[in-house]
Amino acid sequence: MIKIGTYSYDEYIQLVKSFHGNMAPGLIIGGFMVDLAMKNLPPGEFYDAICETAVCLPDSVQLLTPCTTGNGWLKVLEFGRFALTLYEKYGGEGVRVYLDTEKLEKWPEIKSWFFKLKPKKEQNLQAILDQIKEAGAAIMTLQKVRVDPKTLHRPKLGKVAVCPGCGEAYPVRDGERCRACRGETPYL
Amino acid sequence: MIKIGTYSYDEYIQLVKSFHGNMAPGLIIGGFMVDLAMKNLPPGEFYDAICETAVCLPDSVQLLTPCTTGNGWLKVLEFGRFALTLYEKYGGEGVRVYLDTEKLEKWPEIKSWFFKLKPKKEQNLQAILDQIKEAGAAIMTLQKVRVDPKTLHRPKLGKVAVCPGCGEAYPVRDGERCRACRGETPYL
Repeated sequence: MIKIGTYSYDEYIQLVKSFHGNMAPGLIIGGFMVDLAMKNLPPGEFYDAICETAVCLPDSVQLLTPCTTGNGWLKVLEFGRFALTLYEKYGGEGVRVYLDTEKLEKWPEIKSWFFKLKPKKEQNLQAILDQIKEAGAAIMTLQKVRVDPKTLHRPKLGKVAVCPGCGEAYPVRDGERCRACRGETPYL
Repeated sequence: MIKIGTYSYDEYIQLVKSFHGNMAPGLIIGGFMVDLAMKNLPPGEFYDAICETAVCLPDSVQLLTPCTTGNGWLKVLEFGRFALTLYEKYGGEGVRVYLDTEKLEKWPEIKSWFFKLKPKKEQNLQAILDQIKEAGAAIMTLQKVRVDPKTLHRPKLGKVAVCPGCGEAYPVRDGERCRACRGETPYL
């Protein structure tokens, strides 16, 4: 039986629909990627995650590992590469899994979807999903990596004070006022 | 009975433990914040979310709304303000909820936790959680806001090509090589 993490394939599909909202092919590929990485993790109980794209992969990681956006164990780097890494958080030893475009040659539906070779309305979602399920880890490559812990250290929030601009609490390390009051506000 | 979104308080606690990994006070406050925002949403079926901190709040949003990191409906702005916004994604009309430090005066355990007035080992987690549950929305303030849609538009991935540096697929808009190959790699 096909397993993704500790779930059956069908259980994982249900999780994807419930959490992510739709059956994105990237989430299913991402599930197989996380599964492959977890099977090859270096020893050590605690690991962090990197996604090299903000699209889809972060949700596969959040569904299948303890790493989430809000607990700080998942880091998203917006490289637009379809790759993820799980690594031991103190030493930085880890495994990286990426979608290997050379291996896509044998899977025309996945290739066509990934490289957007057809307009979306001409794509056959079911055919894409069927190939993804059949291919599993056969379209990805695993590498050993060492993460530079310096680049990924989330600085402690540190001292908190009330911003003289908005009156809300903010981290003092950001300066005399909070970043929103210093021009970054997204509100009109 | 206290409800958080469609869940009972205890159901939400279970979700937090399972998804976030521990009983972070910020996740519980975040649950009440999302709940308050949802009850005051402008009409319209589709909304996006903003968290103004990466700490805790993104997980409350992901647990209680359809917005996730991987589906692009949740945006994290690292302002370090304990605030979140739900807004109608086309017009930008929305509601923002923030932890109101003036209202914390009546809740000494929450205030002491939030401003880190005591070393962590002297904190009494249960006392903090008890006050959070009792306070509910009483420690927050709701504002109507309009989000500038320009600032939050996630650019389409666009054309995908193979990077001559690493041989992996990347978005052409990033330049001749992918961002990792142009010096941003986190790997040693």
